[in-house]
Amino acid sequence: MKLVFNQADLADSVSIVMKAVPSKTTMPILQCIMIEASFNQIKFTANDMELGIETIVKGEIEEKGKIALDAKIFSDIIRKLPNSKVFIETNENDVATITCEKAKFSIPGKSGDDFAYLPVIERNDFISISQFSLREIIRQTIFSIAVNENNKLMTGELFEIRNNVLKVVSLDGHRIAIRNLPLSGDCPDQKVVVPGKTLNEISKILSGEMDDMVNIYFAENYLLFEFSNTIVLSRLIDGEYFRIDQMLSSDYETKITINRQEFMDCIDRATLLVRESDKMPVIIDVTDGQMELRIDSSIGSMDEEIDIEKTGKDIIIGFNPKFLLDALRVIDDESISIYFVNAKAPCFIRDEKSSYIYLILPVNINVNNR
Amino acid sequence: MKLVFNQADLADSVSIVMKAVPSKTTMPILQCIMIEASFNQIKFTANDMELGIETIVKGEIEEKGKIALDAKIFSDIIRKLPNSKVFIETNENDVATITCEKAKFSIPGKSGDDFAYLPVIERNDFISISQFSLREIIRQTIFSIAVNENNKLMTGELFEIRNNVLKVVSLDGHRIAIRNLPLSGDCPDQKVVVPGKTLNEISKILSGEMDDMVNIYFAENYLLFEFSNTIVLSRLIDGEYFRIDQMLSSDYETKITINRQEFMDCIDRATLLVRESDKMPVIIDVTDGQMELRIDSSIGSMDEEIDIEKTGKDIIIGFNPKFLLDALRVIDDESISIYFVNAKAPCFIRDEKSSYIYLILPVNINVNNR
Repeated sequence: MKLVFNQADLADSVSIVMKAVPSKTTMPILQCIMIEASFNQIKFTANDMELGIETIVKGEIEEKGKIALDAKIFSDIIRKLPNSKVFIETNENDVATITCEKAKFSIPGKSGDDFAYLPVIERNDFISISQFSLREIIRQTIFSIAVNENNKLMTGELFEIRNNVLKVVSLDGHRIAIRNLPLSGDCPDQKVVVPGKTLNEISKILSGEMDDMVNIYFAENYLLFEFSNTIVLSRLIDGEYFRIDQMLSSDYETKITINRQEFMDCIDRATLLVRESDKMPVIIDVTDGQMELRIDSSIGSMDEEIDIEKTGKDIIIGFNPKFLLDALRVIDDESISIYFVNAKAPCFIRDEKSSYIYLILPVNINVNNR
Repeated sequence: MKLVFNQADLADSVSIVMKAVPSKTTMPILQCIMIEASFNQIKFTANDMELGIETIVKGEIEEKGKIALDAKIFSDIIRKLPNSKVFIETNENDVATITCEKAKFSIPGKSGDDFAYLPVIERNDFISISQFSLREIIRQTIFSIAVNENNKLMTGELFEIRNNVLKVVSLDGHRIAIRNLPLSGDCPDQKVVVPGKTLNEISKILSGEMDDMVNIYFAENYLLFEFSNTIVLSRLIDGEYFRIDQMLSSDYETKITINRQEFMDCIDRATLLVRESDKMPVIIDVTDGQMELRIDSSIGSMDEEIDIEKTGKDIIIGFNPKFLLDALRVIDDESISIYFVNAKAPCFIRDEKSSYIYLILPVNINVNNR
């Protein structure tokens, strides 16, 4: 095999497939990037068996062939080369020689006969959205998936299509994040649970441009993302996702409207007095026209007032400050509305059109705090 | 006590004294910042018994007094406050109330009666240099002090004044870094060893401006740095520093001149094939007009050629690539000269005026590599 690349193109493609290289594995071949040059294209593939990425790389084929190279070493070398022409050549012993200007590297490779290629997926049902929207919708929900694997379904996100709306849901037992995105065209109804890892990795590859599209194909056990010269194939999580509709209610006793940034700064200051391990709630005391935020920990105490608009009853309620901050950070609106029922029921942060809904469970607070 | 500050001034001053707050200590009072408002000035002090910092803070005194506040909590709070007026008030129980706009914090403090104030130093012998020069000279030598404490003297730097030149030296058994800085005025001859920690911390506080000066006072067992509104007092390391003059020689068999950036990039690429634990040397093969850099490790092999100017004999010599990079990174010259004697003797990177000298011991290389 003998290939010629531009260093920048090569570095981009390597960094894309790297996202599917497992950091640990019992199958050494999976720590490789598979490089294949057939009669008209050069393809890089990596696969950790749950997530697989294939990308077509710009370059010239002087001699066809294939080789599997250790992903980390290959990627480190490519990144450090000057932005110039890069030649990759292999010999009959599967040693690859990488040459760029006056630098010459030799690294051992593998034939790749035991490489796990991506399965072929039937491309029927699909939706098409902008790379920007997909990246945003992931960013706005991914923080509330569960980290530990006790409940596998909680480590993924629901992607549901109904009536031409894509609904993405994540939850971890303390909170729910929901985003709704209207789709154009006639979309198939679907309901799948996508691993959080897939979503994290794919959002690092997406361009984030409004004009660049990504096609998402729904297949049995798999979801396939296709964009630019790349396909990302992810296994789905098996099982019935949680019924969240019954947890959502539009009734409320108190509604407040508050400046998002002011509220965030205030929570940020309050959490200075909380040690990770303390799980100390911030207490929110809503009265007409203003809200007081209080915290009282072993380190010290803090209180601060913020101007709000309020309709309905006064309320005193406690929250884990991290959960409030996580939701507030990913909302773009300058001013937000929060709906309360009582001190034991979840609050909802949502906009008029329900393009986003964040549900957060309160923390029981001592009557002494009232 | 009742004080009023501007948040930005206060944050600056706190971050300065924080540099002398120990991360661990058996004396809890040392983890505090001592705040004192006497009849005409506000002073913050922190002291870890080896390094002490005092700074005068801009602010209004509405009521005199003093208090010791936990440095970490106090600093976190001040940093997160909006840029506005900050009021600090204490009551008879040594509780401090910090108010800024609508935010109000209460944290417990201490009277500070057991605080370890800085000893008073006689200010006789001193030199005056720019904050820029002091910061640069530290950056250009600090990397070659020894990290482990087996030899206490190696964890510090020699500051020697002779014939109105400040010579700063650091060494760790594998290499020596020397910088010479001509002083103006008639300076006292001096020879002290300053702890590396002091130098690291002070270089974070120095402004880095050519026009801002720092006075350095030489006292028994102590060195005192005075600049802006701040004094930094450091204990010295006891003992006779290494005699380095006998290790320096101006004889050589080979001299090369090389582009510094090209050389660095090339070493950088070669080290991709070195695992930390391997201690694999890079091999430098100097011939007329060019130098080949080679490495051959368990990961793979690499070679690259660089154009050089050479006088004297050909030479093949091996080095720890990190030691070369550390020295090359802190030299400002575009083109540098390296002097070799033989494959077993140290090389010298130095300029004509000897304003810098970096000595690096070679690594024994196998004859097979020749």
